[in-house]
Amino acid sequence: MAVERCEIDLRVRYAETDQMGYVHHSKYAVYFEMGRTELLRACGASYRAMEESGSFFVVVRLDTRFLAPARYDDELRLVTQTTRLTRARIEHDYKLYRKSDNRLLTEGHSVLACVNRQGQVIAIPDLFMQHFDPEWDSK
Amino acid sequence: MAVERCEIDLRVRYAETDQMGYVHHSKYAVYFEMGRTELLRACGASYRAMEESGSFFVVVRLDTRFLAPARYDDELRLVTQTTRLTRARIEHDYKLYRKSDNRLLTEGHSVLACVNRQGQVIAIPDLFMQHFDPEWDSK
Amino acid sequence: MAVERCEIDLRVRYAETDQMGYVHHSKYAVYFEMGRTELLRACGASYRAMEESGSFFVVVRLDTRFLAPARYDDELRLVTQTTRLTRARIEHDYKLYRKSDNRLLTEGHSVLACVNRQGQVIAIPDLFMQHFDPEWDSK
Amino acid sequence: MAVERCEIDLRVRYAETDQMGYVHHSKYAVYFEMGRTELLRACGASYRAMEESGSFFVVVRLDTRFLAPARYDDELRLVTQTTRLTRARIEHDYKLYRKSDNRLLTEGHSVLACVNRQGQVIAIPDLFMQHFDPEWDSK
Repeated sequence: MAVERCEIDLRVRYAETDQMGYVHHSKYAVYFEMGRTELLRACGASYRAMEESGSFFVVVRLDTRFLAPARYDDELRLVTQTTRLTRARIEHDYKLYRKSDNRLLTEGHSVLACVNRQGQVIAIPDLFMQHFDPEWDSK
Repeated sequence: MAVERCEIDLRVRYAETDQMGYVHHSKYAVYFEMGRTELLRACGASYRAMEESGSFFVVVRLDTRFLAPARYDDELRLVTQTTRLTRARIEHDYKLYRKSDNRLLTEGHSVLACVNRQGQVIAIPDLFMQHFDPEWDSK
Repeated sequence: MAVERCEIDLRVRYAETDQMGYVHHSKYAVYFEMGRTELLRACGASYRAMEESGSFFVVVRLDTRFLAPARYDDELRLVTQTTRLTRARIEHDYKLYRKSDNRLLTEGHSVLACVNRQGQVIAIPDLFMQHFDPEWDSK
Repeated sequence: MAVERCEIDLRVRYAETDQMGYVHHSKYAVYFEMGRTELLRACGASYRAMEESGSFFVVVRLDTRFLAPARYDDELRLVTQTTRLTRARIEHDYKLYRKSDNRLLTEGHSVLACVNRQGQVIAIPDLFMQHFDPEWDSK
């Protein structure tokens, strides 16, 4: 079985805070996307190469629960996991922890679809499927 | 009954696009927040004044469906609606349309809680409740 | 002579603030870019159309002086002015004011070059030159 | 002599690109700020602690030259250097390189002043001066 789970560490940037002193809630979507990029890299693939070959993932759904705030200079750990993969959709779960006390700050779930350069929905490419499931056989 | 629904128009900024040529999905949370600010203003209140008096709204949940992409320079219409208000929570629905063809691009739902300067959850202030429900009586 | 100066009003978004309670200094570049888009529109042109035809402006230099902070919900007025135009470069000055007291908050100066889809520097297209200088004659 | 120069590596995030496929020029100010945070940490100080003690740096001037674009997933190296330090101002130079070919992409220079919680300009605190110059003696 391929890699289905990836952990990355990141440090909160000053520009990500808002005047409450918290990371602005819109920034977690950016973190989650970093998790997907690194999960793909851990599988031996590259999202950059995938886009260059003409296949693009678009987020069609994103649900987030904000449990506790992250703050400037906090060290965070993001766990990204593929939870479902079909030819039409790929789903991920995200858990973001503060490293100092391992507290869960944010949970997310996303659904992505694949489109071509014209924005038309296409099947997720075989090459990508194989990265996530080495036994994948398109025939 | 108070104002429960607010429409604002906005134009997509270049900096909001990503290399797919779409508005990056993290930006819709920013648009929705603009909708809440203007809905509050339409009720005769000011979120800035509310924060200055020591009460802050924090987003505890945000769910978004991305139906079609917005692009640079698109004119958009955002409809923000209060769907539920209790002493502990305020819930909003969002619908974002492209003005040229009235196509629904994005739908969202958020749940907000109220906290004090120390980040402790508090009841939503009477003053705020009255803006949304003139018959509100705290006693 | 063509339009060389354009004023736009904008309201500071919550997401543009940082934990000091000020607009983060990186956001002024976004405001200045909005000014350029609207200045071009005031000249009867469209930057979106220009990009679709294969010509892109890239910022090669941006200098900014931050005189006083902008804050959440502030109403601002941005004055964008073309100060120099050659076949190779277009230069703009920016002045950003707080509307409530007309205080100058930020001043900027940018230099843009024109590139094609491959990122190669090209001469600024005739059509664009004519928008800024109706007497422009490419011959 | 204290640490006056700091290198950090960073990877371009998808959300930092714009529809040209380049890192949006407003993002370099965010990178430069990360460089300052890490330079201070390398000196044994913490900007977070400095703010908690009531002293804040504000950017009063930022000049940037954009020489070549950074792209999604590029690995970059940022060199941040303190070039001048007085009681009133601290100046930094920035050089941002693409790691794959060591090409210089962006150069910047910033001037920061120090303010208190009320936003009034103050002298840079002794503690901070000592981090940058161990022979600093405030008397």
